[in-house]
Amino acid sequence: MTDLPSPVMLHDTPRAPNPRRVRIFMAEKGISLPVTPVDIMTGEQFAAHKDRVGSHNVPALALEDGSFLTETVAICRYLEAFHPEPNLMGRDPLETARIEMWSRRGEVQLMFPVASVLRHGNPAMAVMEEQCPAWAEANGPRVARGLVWLNASLEGKDYLAGDRFTVADITALVTVDFMRTIRTPVPEEHGATHRWLERVRARDTLVP
Amino acid sequence: MTDLPSPVMLHDTPRAPNPRRVRIFMAEKGISLPVTPVDIMTGEQFAAHKDRVGSHNVPALALEDGSFLTETVAICRYLEAFHPEPNLMGRDPLETARIEMWSRRGEVQLMFPVASVLRHGNPAMAVMEEQCPAWAEANGPRVARGLVWLNASLEGKDYLAGDRFTVADITALVTVDFMRTIRTPVPEEHGATHRWLERVRARDTLVP
Repeated sequence: MTDLPSPVMLHDTPRAPNPRRVRIFMAEKGISLPVTPVDIMTGEQFAAHKDRVGSHNVPALALEDGSFLTETVAICRYLEAFHPEPNLMGRDPLETARIEMWSRRGEVQLMFPVASVLRHGNPAMAVMEEQCPAWAEANGPRVARGLVWLNASLEGKDYLAGDRFTVADITALVTVDFMRTIRTPVPEEHGATHRWLERVRARDTLVP
Repeated sequence: MTDLPSPVMLHDTPRAPNPRRVRIFMAEKGISLPVTPVDIMTGEQFAAHKDRVGSHNVPALALEDGSFLTETVAICRYLEAFHPEPNLMGRDPLETARIEMWSRRGEVQLMFPVASVLRHGNPAMAVMEEQCPAWAEANGPRVARGLVWLNASLEGKDYLAGDRFTVADITALVTVDFMRTIRTPVPEEHGATHRWLERVRARDTLVP
């Protein structure tokens, strides 16, 4: 591990869900890094940020060898190698695969539909997306089905991937919180989701 | 490792890209498993398959403890733990993160747009997708941009994640091959992509 380049800087932006996933992941592990802010509402990710990083993706993790990592889950996996505790991505191959499966399902079933409603339906997002209003509309029912999926997935479990808090919960929680941008609340009758939200929101690592 | 449940069965379907990613991954490692076929063109994934597996996702890996793994990359990561060679997902944290990053980028930049054109634009896909024709149309230019991204990403490299064949190449290759379903060829002038295709297609593991 000592031969590997350390993370030295996080290129970050407030409010967007993927950067917050990484911030909460770091808070869970007590990792603190200097931050270069990227203003995605003015399109900086397609200009100065892309020139620096080689990709428009935010967040981006700068390493001491001068290279960058992007893609939220790849960044989290790298950070976990440097700060293994508390474990958030699995301690053995089966647990690792299950956590990855649940985090992916959270992305596909809920995060992508929520993001599609916002990015294709909100005029303020036109700076970052070639918008397709019909796709925003089509994703309203997908969000509703995603919430049903989440509630069913949490039935009889304390956390999304099983009996402890993992990166899968971070994916799902950040998405549920982000639903305020599309004015969609978790339905009152989704008891399992509400119990999980209460459990997860008691943590002191849920940085904005 | 000996305490972990072994894979005993692959629930699989021909022609779809994600199942093929797993089949090629297994062929690279010389893994052979009994197969339960799922007919996704008649909607079996939403009926008998979902009853068995607890999810409509195909492929699904059945384990000897009776549980199932879904999500292509989670399945691949589990299989890699059982058959570490040839390594396809990284030998150290940095390589692992970079391969995950490139595989993800391949999904987001190219695979999702290609799948959206097909699933939302081809009437035969109505059995598996609530179709939004405007989204199919919006993804035509996204596929074109994804191909430009792929060619630029392959410039000066032998493989997508660097100097050896990895799961990131499987993601990209399966997607390029799948573009025949939307009748989109790789533009002739994309030299880096064509050189990479020639290199990758020389492998004897590219099962259909």
